[in-house]
Amino acid sequence: MKSQYAEELRSGQTVKEVFVLSWKSIKDKKDGGVFAVLEFSDRSGTIQGIAWDKVVENIGALSVGDFVFVVGNVNEYNDRLQIVVNSIKRIDDDEINPKDFLPRADEDIEQAFSEIDEFRNNIKDLHLKQLLAAFFENKALIEKFKLAPAAKRVHHAYIGGLVVHTRNVLKLINKVNDVYANLNFDLLIAAGILHDIGKIYEYTYTRNIDFSTQGRMFGHIVIGYELVADRIKQIPDFPESLRLRLLHMILSHHGEYEWGSPKQPSFLEALILHFLDNLDSKVEIITSARKKNKGMEKDWSDYHPFLEREIYLREED
Amino acid sequence: MKSQYAEELRSGQTVKEVFVLSWKSIKDKKDGGVFAVLEFSDRSGTIQGIAWDKVVENIGALSVGDFVFVVGNVNEYNDRLQIVVNSIKRIDDDEINPKDFLPRADEDIEQAFSEIDEFRNNIKDLHLKQLLAAFFENKALIEKFKLAPAAKRVHHAYIGGLVVHTRNVLKLINKVNDVYANLNFDLLIAAGILHDIGKIYEYTYTRNIDFSTQGRMFGHIVIGYELVADRIKQIPDFPESLRLRLLHMILSHHGEYEWGSPKQPSFLEALILHFLDNLDSKVEIITSARKKNKGMEKDWSDYHPFLEREIYLREED
Amino acid sequence: MKSQYAEELRSGQTVKEVFVLSWKSIKDKKDGGVFAVLEFSDRSGTIQGIAWDKVVENIGALSVGDFVFVVGNVNEYNDRLQIVVNSIKRIDDDEINPKDFLPRADEDIEQAFSEIDEFRNNIKDLHLKQLLAAFFENKALIEKFKLAPAAKRVHHAYIGGLVVHTRNVLKLINKVNDVYANLNFDLLIAAGILHDIGKIYEYTYTRNIDFSTQGRMFGHIVIGYELVADRIKQIPDFPESLRLRLLHMILSHHGEYEWGSPKQPSFLEALILHFLDNLDSKVEIITSARKKNKGMEKDWSDYHPFLEREIYLREED
Amino acid sequence: MKSQYAEELRSGQTVKEVFVLSWKSIKDKKDGGVFAVLEFSDRSGTIQGIAWDKVVENIGALSVGDFVFVVGNVNEYNDRLQIVVNSIKRIDDDEINPKDFLPRADEDIEQAFSEIDEFRNNIKDLHLKQLLAAFFENKALIEKFKLAPAAKRVHHAYIGGLVVHTRNVLKLINKVNDVYANLNFDLLIAAGILHDIGKIYEYTYTRNIDFSTQGRMFGHIVIGYELVADRIKQIPDFPESLRLRLLHMILSHHGEYEWGSPKQPSFLEALILHFLDNLDSKVEIITSARKKNKGMEKDWSDYHPFLEREIYLREED
Amino acid sequence: MKSQYAEELRSGQTVKEVFVLSWKSIKDKKDGGVFAVLEFSDRSGTIQGIAWDKVVENIGALSVGDFVFVVGNVNEYNDRLQIVVNSIKRIDDDEINPKDFLPRADEDIEQAFSEIDEFRNNIKDLHLKQLLAAFFENKALIEKFKLAPAAKRVHHAYIGGLVVHTRNVLKLINKVNDVYANLNFDLLIAAGILHDIGKIYEYTYTRNIDFSTQGRMFGHIVIGYELVADRIKQIPDFPESLRLRLLHMILSHHGEYEWGSPKQPSFLEALILHFLDNLDSKVEIITSARKKNKGMEKDWSDYHPFLEREIYLREED
Amino acid sequence: MKSQYAEELRSGQTVKEVFVLSWKSIKDKKDGGVFAVLEFSDRSGTIQGIAWDKVVENIGALSVGDFVFVVGNVNEYNDRLQIVVNSIKRIDDDEINPKDFLPRADEDIEQAFSEIDEFRNNIKDLHLKQLLAAFFENKALIEKFKLAPAAKRVHHAYIGGLVVHTRNVLKLINKVNDVYANLNFDLLIAAGILHDIGKIYEYTYTRNIDFSTQGRMFGHIVIGYELVADRIKQIPDFPESLRLRLLHMILSHHGEYEWGSPKQPSFLEALILHFLDNLDSKVEIITSARKKNKGMEKDWSDYHPFLEREIYLREED
Repeated sequence: MKSQYAEELRSGQTVKEVFVLSWKSIKDKKDGGVFAVLEFSDRSGTIQGIAWDKVVENIGALSVGDFVFVVGNVNEYNDRLQIVVNSIKRIDDDEINPKDFLPRADEDIEQAFSEIDEFRNNIKDLHLKQLLAAFFENKALIEKFKLAPAAKRVHHAYIGGLVVHTRNVLKLINKVNDVYANLNFDLLIAAGILHDIGKIYEYTYTRNIDFSTQGRMFGHIVIGYELVADRIKQIPDFPESLRLRLLHMILSHHGEYEWGSPKQPSFLEALILHFLDNLDSKVEIITSARKKNKGMEKDWSDYHPFLEREIYLREED
Repeated sequence: MKSQYAEELRSGQTVKEVFVLSWKSIKDKKDGGVFAVLEFSDRSGTIQGIAWDKVVENIGALSVGDFVFVVGNVNEYNDRLQIVVNSIKRIDDDEINPKDFLPRADEDIEQAFSEIDEFRNNIKDLHLKQLLAAFFENKALIEKFKLAPAAKRVHHAYIGGLVVHTRNVLKLINKVNDVYANLNFDLLIAAGILHDIGKIYEYTYTRNIDFSTQGRMFGHIVIGYELVADRIKQIPDFPESLRLRLLHMILSHHGEYEWGSPKQPSFLEALILHFLDNLDSKVEIITSARKKNKGMEKDWSDYHPFLEREIYLREED
Repeated sequence: MKSQYAEELRSGQTVKEVFVLSWKSIKDKKDGGVFAVLEFSDRSGTIQGIAWDKVVENIGALSVGDFVFVVGNVNEYNDRLQIVVNSIKRIDDDEINPKDFLPRADEDIEQAFSEIDEFRNNIKDLHLKQLLAAFFENKALIEKFKLAPAAKRVHHAYIGGLVVHTRNVLKLINKVNDVYANLNFDLLIAAGILHDIGKIYEYTYTRNIDFSTQGRMFGHIVIGYELVADRIKQIPDFPESLRLRLLHMILSHHGEYEWGSPKQPSFLEALILHFLDNLDSKVEIITSARKKNKGMEKDWSDYHPFLEREIYLREED
Repeated sequence: MKSQYAEELRSGQTVKEVFVLSWKSIKDKKDGGVFAVLEFSDRSGTIQGIAWDKVVENIGALSVGDFVFVVGNVNEYNDRLQIVVNSIKRIDDDEINPKDFLPRADEDIEQAFSEIDEFRNNIKDLHLKQLLAAFFENKALIEKFKLAPAAKRVHHAYIGGLVVHTRNVLKLINKVNDVYANLNFDLLIAAGILHDIGKIYEYTYTRNIDFSTQGRMFGHIVIGYELVADRIKQIPDFPESLRLRLLHMILSHHGEYEWGSPKQPSFLEALILHFLDNLDSKVEIITSARKKNKGMEKDWSDYHPFLEREIYLREED
Repeated sequence: MKSQYAEELRSGQTVKEVFVLSWKSIKDKKDGGVFAVLEFSDRSGTIQGIAWDKVVENIGALSVGDFVFVVGNVNEYNDRLQIVVNSIKRIDDDEINPKDFLPRADEDIEQAFSEIDEFRNNIKDLHLKQLLAAFFENKALIEKFKLAPAAKRVHHAYIGGLVVHTRNVLKLINKVNDVYANLNFDLLIAAGILHDIGKIYEYTYTRNIDFSTQGRMFGHIVIGYELVADRIKQIPDFPESLRLRLLHMILSHHGEYEWGSPKQPSFLEALILHFLDNLDSKVEIITSARKKNKGMEKDWSDYHPFLEREIYLREED
Repeated sequence: MKSQYAEELRSGQTVKEVFVLSWKSIKDKKDGGVFAVLEFSDRSGTIQGIAWDKVVENIGALSVGDFVFVVGNVNEYNDRLQIVVNSIKRIDDDEINPKDFLPRADEDIEQAFSEIDEFRNNIKDLHLKQLLAAFFENKALIEKFKLAPAAKRVHHAYIGGLVVHTRNVLKLINKVNDVYANLNFDLLIAAGILHDIGKIYEYTYTRNIDFSTQGRMFGHIVIGYELVADRIKQIPDFPESLRLRLLHMILSHHGEYEWGSPKQPSFLEALILHFLDNLDSKVEIITSARKKNKGMEKDWSDYHPFLEREIYLREED
């Protein structure tokens, strides 16, 4: 855990801490020589930096995106704080804790994950049970699952977002299952757990949350399909009809072609998964728009480009 | 209750029963004179009729849509059954039971209505309680509410459909409310009960299910808005913020402009109502497509023009 | 009427005038103490302001959007004019004249309103006459009607814009009625007068033109529908068919679902109202794009995002 | 002028008249030999025909679409009338009057045309005057102009339809010009007269109304553009700015790319022409839907696929 | 190879041949007893059948879709030919040759396949070579590849269609590669061969061409992705970058989300594959529309619902 | 040819060169008097300028867009280079070489044009040969053809772009013609040469690449149609069917209404031209996105607003 975060620095402080180098630009001084304008980031936000001659030589070897250990002092310049850098050096990725550098869930991810695990444990269908066990016993994969965001920008765009979103979808499934008779509950829960599993490879989430190349090339729908299809092949006698349904639910969970699903939901469980996935995403978008505007006096948010509307912010009277 | 239904008639039977006259055509016989080709309908379906000279004079005074008491015999002509009509006369609307002539819910509407009523009784907010009481104490309106369909064609298109759909939405609201903290549950339930209330005037559902002129002109969204806005005016000190929210939820429950809502949902409860209304409608569409194909051997329904896809029909293995 | 407007201030002038405080930001001085960066607005535009220590204490209590009486001097800083504020205090809303603070119509609103009134007086249908009288005898409502804009941004976005737009639509109706036989002229005129009446509550237009919360929640179409529907209920024997037509025309005047109408025009008068409303809006958009570019040498406007095209600006040769 | 029309024939009559042969099919008789099933059309509608052995040899040489002189008797077969053909022979196109075979305007086309001519005569701009004179002095072209329909199916789909529609658009222009100051009235009138001139070549309208190959390949917008552009080249000193405006108005009069205009209206006159053209088309669609349903008891038309809605049919109370 | 095809049967012939039973309906005779109305199909078309009492018992056990060996005589009834069935019995699927029952390519599939194989043999990249070898050495799969259609209805909807379409795309790739420098030709060819490989499982094409359940659930894009991804896993050291590109090309070859691709082409080779796949499909649609209208006198096809236009049919002059 | 380009200037240099004056702004100095802030452009890019009192009087008479001969010195101000202007004067358009001021093709335009000419020479159809000769013998037109860009922004937006794009389309046609039998090759080549000919008047490309007024009013599709239609009229006995096809190909080459074509391609050659035109445009967009990102370390371009996606930039491994 870091002890100094970018947003908490104050003028006059001494800095000895790791940041992501999120911008660098070498410039000529009017009187000869060079200086560097820098930007340092962590999960709290960003702060400007400036480095004079003697330091600049070290900066030449750094790339934007590197983790760097910075020593310097904070002062104010043009109404903004900046770190005057005394020394700076690259830090290996495995020396840092990603949670320090990326926004993370408000709630306890281990707790949310254990809720998912409980849903899994209640599955009675033996083939689905076996399938999910194969995923949950894969420690490396589960480690990623707990870190992955659920989106780059739009919703649950933070470390742990995938777990929070998946847990919510499972809770919704669990509830909606009470309303309609004759749903295949085990299928719904299994598909609910796995529907976004491809996101663990769709995104990178070490230094910053972005799409991976595989993510841009295939998308989480197809990546997830492949992960699940591959596991199923290793389970003897996995029923064909169950395989078709489960994989179709992953493929169709975005609901419409234009939202990136290569197939539309064609039976009840697939339709319900799509609706509940969509519902939780939209709820999160509105919830975080409200959070962002917390404490402001306005009744309405600015125009939200993804939802294409303004959001009403006023708390209940 | 009728004792003879169109679909259950068999060749050789004597008919003495009321039907809707759903088609009539007077034709010239080759040898002079006239005869009438008729069609009779009830909630079970339709049967052809034929009437010879002496009867035709009575038919001139009848209009398509009239309830008629028919006496005759069933025989088979060109592979189809028909009633050879001996006598036919108009029956007043109030002598018939609409349930005989229109498709109706499979389940007990009174029971479904009492579930709605229980949700209503659990509302704690005094203004919403008062508002809903005003509706539920209006016997004539509740009578209509219990008869109204939820659609002309697409979903819950039968007597009692509105009650079944409303009850389902309330059950979904009740469940989803457990998943998300800080929702205004009373508001959700009140809006859930009232969201489609305009349908009692949007449709006609005596002889057949069709749009009323008011329904085509205004639509159930605006009719419902007006019904609720009018009641609120009669309740002293109904909080303005509550009024805005509740009425906005009615206006926005179709979710998008192109689906007929003049406003998009702009806060969480409005968004959730839209999703759950939409979910229940789609579930019903798939469920009835499955029913319609029951017993057929095919795995996939025909192309469903509203859903724009085929539906997978196969039961779990 | 104000005597000093933001856009007319010149370096060296003394200011003693009321403005809207449209921005404020308290900042730390490098040498300790604070200062405030401000922005003042009126119907002519905006001017920056700066207030040093002694004044800032007064500013803490002011909100953006307040009317303030400012005493100070104009100077130039960084190529821009600013008011150096000597004193500033809040003014009550009822001490100001909204016309000073909001853009207003080029033409005489009273004159335009009297043209509307003349159209009203020529209505022969007694029920419509009575209905409109009820509106026009409501002084408070007519006062608002004369102030309301016809839009926030796109067209007639100024004080009096609603009157100007309504008058234009009536003139167009009056003309088009000559071309087609058998139109219900009284219905067209009545609907023309009332079609946008909901805008008097859809917008706020005291300090600045914006949507009201009710406006965002319901929109002027539904607000107008309700206003008219409520009045009709108070008129004995208002014919049902006339009620359906008139209210349908209000609901359908945007023509298409995606433009916010919950119903599409379903008879000639409704269709014509939609076209003429749309025509006048678009004419105004082009006219004001031309005004904005007046005196510039270019033949084509910049890309107009609402019309999705460039507009040809060249005057006739 | 024909003396016998298909729709007016009655069982027992002798037929000696010209029709379009709109269908023919040669069939084998069970007992050897052949017979022909035929269909005859004119502007009133169609009637079946049957021709036995001796006549069939003449039919072999006839093509569907030919004008034929038919001698025979009307009888009734399977509840439908048919002509039993005694003799049939081809008639040259120039021996018939197209007005007998195609639906035509209800009103007097010469009168409507003279209204157009009057608008033309009031144009003051000398170049536009000269341009229009060139068209109106072209007898052959004007002859076509008076015959051409304004559409194949949707609106004004009858002989004379182009004149009726053009006249209506001019009347609308004339009226709307009174409402907005500073419009170029001569330009509007000239463009109004010429906007659909390409339709005289887009359609064929001798035997039936259909697209010509040129019409399908280029469309009336481009055909009209070319006709007008060519004429302008022959007028000395036709002002370039006027040429650009007039031709742009023809190209953009459908208003949007998806409605077939290669450009969107980019100045006021172009915008107004588009709206008024569109308005008159839609008015005609509704008017003819009403006509078609005249005398029926229903309040609403069937779903109109072009307008994508039902039309309210009820006359004023 | 069958010796009798449905379309070639003539009245009076004796039939002893296999057909698909494409319709059956058991009916009551007026005088007691039952008879069966049947329909028999093969690749040439269909013919009606009728079976009297003694035969009907055998028909009860048959399902629509069965292959049946029929003995009977052809006669004519109501202007249509029919087989009067003397005996009928089920035939096993493996006794028939699918080519007899399904439309097939005009050209020699073996020849077209060998052209594909030659393209494959020219690939130089060793990993792609190895990958394709794995497919081409799989006899069962190649057998299916040679039978599969390229569509159910729209284009290349016949046995061998997939080979013809694939070969065409390869020829186009080969040509276009000459125009643009620096394309990865091996990648283009490999992706060209494999882009529609999923169609061998998307369709069923034994009795008739239809979607398989897997086809409806996953679609050929995802099925093909999985087939190729699985093979790649078995090839040691297959370069990751090549894997990403090749699989992305399969996923994105429909070009747009609304055409069923879960990703849009993101580099040149992917874009080119999409265009050439699309081009060959459209060329085939127009070509077969022309074939279908061959010999007719008309210049224009009927409205083509998939292309949303009429097609010009006239041959060069 | 200029000897000094904006992007190559360095601090300390003396400037004596022609530029486009691309921005000017006269400002008051704090101490009285005025100065001018300027921007100078050429095909390499832009550089700021500043002019003090004595020079400003000359600047008053200059318009943005003028070519100006500038004498001055380069220095650095606020980290940016600027020319301190000593003298400035207007230069006539005919004294400059447009190639100095506009981006131009990387390749030799004369060479690319000669490839087009060779395709032309291979046309065998005498009428098409004659038509194209008429264009190619028009020196002034060909001069423009060699300069014109193929777009303002999206693709081939540089001097010579039209020739490069046209040559590419011809090469593609030439190749694709080998794949499909029975195409009219001469027609394809002629239409390929002429499809974008209207662009020589759609754009202005002397000082900067922009739309001409005619271009905005008509678009290159209609301008090209008119150019070709006019030439055809001068060729005796040009076959009507050929005229229809060729002109239809020009009109429909954008393929869809929403992409600006007033007609959709209705036969094979028209369809193929559309696809190949589209393919070359898209290839160029991706190619230049790659060029723009050359040397950067990133794997993916920024979001490309026209293609609505990111482009994969990584070179083959």
